[in-house]
Amino acid sequence: MSTLAIEEVEDKARAAKAAAQVLATAGTTVKNAALLAMAEALGCQSEEVLAANALDIAGATERGLSPHSIERLTLSPKRIAEMQTGLRQVAALPDPIGAVLSGWRRPNGLQITKTRVPLGVIGIIFESRPNVTVDAAALCLKSGNAALLRGGSEAIHSNIALARALGGALESVGLPRACVQLIESTDRAAAKRLMTLNGFVDCLIPRGGASLIKAVVETATVPVIETGTGNCHVYVDKDADSEMASAIILNAKVQRPSVCNSAETLLVHKDIAETFLPLVGAALVKAGVEIRGDAVTRALLPTANPAEEEDWLTEYNALILAVKVVDSLEDAVAHIAQYGTRHSEAIITENYAAAQAFTDGVDCAAVYVNASTRFTDGFEFGFGAEIGISNQKLHARGPMGLEELTTYKYVVRGDGQIRG
Amino acid sequence: MSTLAIEEVEDKARAAKAAAQVLATAGTTVKNAALLAMAEALGCQSEEVLAANALDIAGATERGLSPHSIERLTLSPKRIAEMQTGLRQVAALPDPIGAVLSGWRRPNGLQITKTRVPLGVIGIIFESRPNVTVDAAALCLKSGNAALLRGGSEAIHSNIALARALGGALESVGLPRACVQLIESTDRAAAKRLMTLNGFVDCLIPRGGASLIKAVVETATVPVIETGTGNCHVYVDKDADSEMASAIILNAKVQRPSVCNSAETLLVHKDIAETFLPLVGAALVKAGVEIRGDAVTRALLPTANPAEEEDWLTEYNALILAVKVVDSLEDAVAHIAQYGTRHSEAIITENYAAAQAFTDGVDCAAVYVNASTRFTDGFEFGFGAEIGISNQKLHARGPMGLEELTTYKYVVRGDGQIRG
Repeated sequence: MSTLAIEEVEDKARAAKAAAQVLATAGTTVKNAALLAMAEALGCQSEEVLAANALDIAGATERGLSPHSIERLTLSPKRIAEMQTGLRQVAALPDPIGAVLSGWRRPNGLQITKTRVPLGVIGIIFESRPNVTVDAAALCLKSGNAALLRGGSEAIHSNIALARALGGALESVGLPRACVQLIESTDRAAAKRLMTLNGFVDCLIPRGGASLIKAVVETATVPVIETGTGNCHVYVDKDADSEMASAIILNAKVQRPSVCNSAETLLVHKDIAETFLPLVGAALVKAGVEIRGDAVTRALLPTANPAEEEDWLTEYNALILAVKVVDSLEDAVAHIAQYGTRHSEAIITENYAAAQAFTDGVDCAAVYVNASTRFTDGFEFGFGAEIGISNQKLHARGPMGLEELTTYKYVVRGDGQIRG
Repeated sequence: MSTLAIEEVEDKARAAKAAAQVLATAGTTVKNAALLAMAEALGCQSEEVLAANALDIAGATERGLSPHSIERLTLSPKRIAEMQTGLRQVAALPDPIGAVLSGWRRPNGLQITKTRVPLGVIGIIFESRPNVTVDAAALCLKSGNAALLRGGSEAIHSNIALARALGGALESVGLPRACVQLIESTDRAAAKRLMTLNGFVDCLIPRGGASLIKAVVETATVPVIETGTGNCHVYVDKDADSEMASAIILNAKVQRPSVCNSAETLLVHKDIAETFLPLVGAALVKAGVEIRGDAVTRALLPTANPAEEEDWLTEYNALILAVKVVDSLEDAVAHIAQYGTRHSEAIITENYAAAQAFTDGVDCAAVYVNASTRFTDGFEFGFGAEIGISNQKLHARGPMGLEELTTYKYVVRGDGQIRG
């Protein structure tokens, strides 16, 4: 079993590398035609996809998966229509490939042009949501990359049906099926082999929970982009507009608590705590948020539970908010440096110098002044797409759209130059 | 021993992280002052450095290291002066930090600015050349990064003396000593710990031979930039100027055969082979190059040795050249795709379409038309510095200067925006 799994991954990686060479010089027209054909194919084959999905749901129900997990797994005509829309939207985005990023002439006459090219083969390891098969395939294809997809075992029938539809669409426009491949083996050995295919996989992106990402980071020898964990803070400065601060922390905590750009800790300057905390506390409690506060917070909000050291480190992804009163902006910055995950951090202030000090001093992917952390998102940033949010500093930071799935090459034109 | 080694690395990593926070907002003036003070300190402490180096050389001689290895290890007043010049040159380079890479306004009024910031803590694992301690420290410092350096055990006394001089210089301008730290333990456990310090090391760059790089890529869980291996090709098209082609292949092979951007394989179009190969063959043999050719090559160059499959894969780093006659440009591109390491590849041609097809079709860091592969170098590209040549596609590709040691953060300015 495990040998077969490894063979499958190696065969598909070889095919992906060959397909990536074709894709690297494929024009925008054919890539867009493929994306539109993929949307078409999903429509034509929606019955097969839904039948396969029903098998997955039955299996998941039998194995006693949580209703939440089954919900994430479930496809419907509406969700298929959403995937189709997504494919058409990616087709409508500008092609990132071929852009000249910079260029210059050297004293010896060499003309150097830094040109955007695809990464090559992108591996994506994801969990149960089958729509990732389609979304990831679309973004990889548009950016000229071959995709090697490995989804969760609970969605395997759905993913196979989706990948079959996409593969047929690729062939219909004359592109190799291997531009988008699903690893069908659900053996762990297959995932492990994918993580160590140096020379074949140019970039591996894990999409899922913290344990999946940790496993990939620890096992992979190919370059990885770590995504995901967000222990985000909102700092309310002494010079904040209380109404604005309250609206922003409520939005950052409550609007969608399960995602990485939601806020987990509120830091409040001591000079504003006495007036601000009761105001925001009432609004948070009304919205069903459990507050875990330090001693000063609890003195002002008697219903708050005590915050332990662990709370400052926790990404709740739930309606819980840790609250701490700090002595200064510097203390807030230091707290964020100690406990944050360098994802998204916000200051609420009317003070110019405080805004500058916070944006300069906080190290994270996206630092906000007077706005919700919830905007860290490829669509909200205007990228038109998102493959994930990078939590590392190498290659890409924050929301990753099409450009973040590319690299560059230097084209150097000469007329006989040799090095002296 | 090994526990102490691990403790040393962890303590220094913590200190590096704190120093990186200071450096992130340090101005250009203080960073340049530090670089000039470092140059000064090397001058003042050159006797101590040379005495420490003498200990290393004595040790290396005792252990029977090769004359070549001892040469790489040896410092001299001239080499110290070169390191000083290097520091002053880095001080004179523009500061990459704070540049605004792009910026835009969203329909909801959010103003997004993508701003260049340091990576944070950069780990460098290198082999015997002690000047890397100084070069790497200079580039990391100028780009606002704390450096954690781990050199080869054979240069440990030299490295300690150099790092002491640099540390004093940092303190003299008010920067933390921990901006530049040397791991003094030569225990393997220390290197291993450095490779797995996720959350502390933002980027790890191995500098050295293939086995060092392989070990780092396989062991590290922190983000790595793979450097180094170059199996570079020169393809002489049927429409090449033979004189130019001969001069370029000679330069690419002979000028400095030990480096990664030298050529290892010559591919010659069959239509030009009969006239070109005897011409270039005579020049190569005269320069002391051993030619290993395929059957067609050997028919035209009877003194050539036979090339085995292994030869197409080998980075000789020596005066040996593999030579193959190909049927077409497409065959040349396919050969390079199969055997190349995506470093530097050149075509020699007077034909416009051939130049375009080659530069589009070959996937590598630097692709040349009518120029030597030897130009893949930070200085030759005009970067004014080089920390290494990236052999991967993620983050940086090809020569890495100061800009390649940075990342970015998004600064998002609002006036109360919340997500709907």
